[in-house]
Amino acid sequence: MKLYTYWRSLATFRVRIALNLKGIKYEPVYVDLDGGQQHQSAYKSVNPQSVIPSLVEDDGNVLFQSMAIMEYLDEVHPNPPLLPKDPRGRARVRALSLMTVADTHPLIVPRVRNRVDALYKVGEEGKIEWVKHWFAAGLDAYESHLSRDEGTGLYCHGDTVTMADLCLVSHAAGTRVFKGSIDSHPTVKRIVDRCLADDRFASAQPLRQPGAPVGH
Amino acid sequence: MKLYTYWRSLATFRVRIALNLKGIKYEPVYVDLDGGQQHQSAYKSVNPQSVIPSLVEDDGNVLFQSMAIMEYLDEVHPNPPLLPKDPRGRARVRALSLMTVADTHPLIVPRVRNRVDALYKVGEEGKIEWVKHWFAAGLDAYESHLSRDEGTGLYCHGDTVTMADLCLVSHAAGTRVFKGSIDSHPTVKRIVDRCLADDRFASAQPLRQPGAPVGH
Repeated sequence: MKLYTYWRSLATFRVRIALNLKGIKYEPVYVDLDGGQQHQSAYKSVNPQSVIPSLVEDDGNVLFQSMAIMEYLDEVHPNPPLLPKDPRGRARVRALSLMTVADTHPLIVPRVRNRVDALYKVGEEGKIEWVKHWFAAGLDAYESHLSRDEGTGLYCHGDTVTMADLCLVSHAAGTRVFKGSIDSHPTVKRIVDRCLADDRFASAQPLRQPGAPVGH
Repeated sequence: MKLYTYWRSLATFRVRIALNLKGIKYEPVYVDLDGGQQHQSAYKSVNPQSVIPSLVEDDGNVLFQSMAIMEYLDEVHPNPPLLPKDPRGRARVRALSLMTVADTHPLIVPRVRNRVDALYKVGEEGKIEWVKHWFAAGLDAYESHLSRDEGTGLYCHGDTVTMADLCLVSHAAGTRVFKGSIDSHPTVKRIVDRCLADDRFASAQPLRQPGAPVGH
């Protein structure tokens, strides 16, 4: 299968981790978001919404939206599982995942920070201020849940990796790309550090992808 | 079970429809988002993230995030189903759902438009401009997928209601609350009109909830 990807895309980072955990081989196809390739007809024929990731199966079936792709991979390749078996646990993992996928990440993507700049002329510094605020709010939200919930274990939910960890790690990676820190959020940091000690997470990181800036 | 709800909350609207479709009775608990009740300790003890909906089961189990709640309801009360049975169909329904839950709705919630105003002093008119842009972008994205995909039927996916329809209808309701229109998006309009002909959708609409402005 082909994964349409870009080094900095946090949504694609989540999918790369899922593919690594499941042991699924894929062919990366690079879409230069900074160069606007997502708006060209070659990519729009794959995904008319001009966002990545898209995962295209060998028979041409196109999958889109990172969380839908992770759920699909978990249904078709169930081992190791990305969701617990009990409905309440699954609901908690999905809800924790959505704190990145819905509540935070969509606020900081290029189309939004570029819109902020286009409308309000905030410049690079203003865009970074915008982004850092939402990453910080997301970290607070995670810490508030993870530090008090009985369901939290070595990972976001219990003692094995779930989809929520993939989302949390992508949130932490975004925080770091924008020069923020997760150090003041101890439960978040503990879980992220544990995940990144696993090369299936670490090797999928934005700054380890082709095209990423060197020495960042 | 108790549903923490507010008339205007589009995320809670989605959950209200799901509860109606499943025939599940619930006790509404009103959280006045405009009055800031979501930030008071009474509600923060339920959901420390200060967002709605939360769905609290009779034994005290708290569910949060609209999409996680809809998936949970579908697992625990499988009839009528909100997701198709085949993994590819499920992936498509989830992806279409996330076009609202992730790509659009988070951009227009009060905390974001208030942040835009606080930072850039845009006033009421500026906030409405911000909101309308993202609803319009979301409508374009939906129309681009729904009008071309073979999976589209009488509803977003095939000829029965799925979670994607609940999300699309909430998107359309938000568009209308902010004086936008879906009339120039024919596939969206066709599906939304069909859904709203069903009282289980229509009765859950924001403007039909207690506390909604009259004559809106």
